Amino acid sequence: AGDPVAGKAKAAICAACHGADGIAMIPGYPNLKGQNEQYLVSALKAYKNKQRNGGMSMVMQPQAALLSDDDMANVAAYFSQLK
Amino acid sequence: AGDPVAGKAKAAICAACHGADGIAMIPGYPNLKGQNEQYLVSALKAYKNKQRNGGMSMVMQPQAALLSDDDMANVAAYFSQLK
Repeated sequence: AGDPVAGKAKAAICAACHGADGIAMIPGYPNLKGQNEQYLVSALKAYKNKQRNGGMSMVMQPQAALLSDDDMANVAAYFSQLK
Repeated sequence: AGDPVAGKAKAAICAACHGADGIAMIPGYPNLKGQNEQYLVSALKAYKNKQRNGGMSMVMQPQAALLSDDDMANVAAYFSQLK
């Protein structure tokens, strides 16, 4: 499992669209608050690998490309533990 | 916006993995409770169109293929309004 403290630092840029509290600013974007950690890692990997297309993937693919495997685990841990 | 009552009827099969209350049964699957309606429609369309790959998309692509545009709107309305 990832480190939510490290994830919080890395997640600052995520907050622009997904909200600092994990509630999205824009209805087309998903809320991340309390989302399953393992699912979030899986989604980030699919964006990074350009497997996940359609929707707003043109926004998320370049964001995910900036994240290492550790970064993904940490960011996922951070959002999953938000209440 | 979709009809959450019609969506609830259509969502019975979704509950097997995503939970009757929108809390997933399995950590690799996303919770859907309270998720943004517009995002859910976008995700379902991307699965149906086989644009969304990777992760557990091999499960969701055939499920989404069974849904009409109206079904997607209704199912999304149902999960988005769960508290």
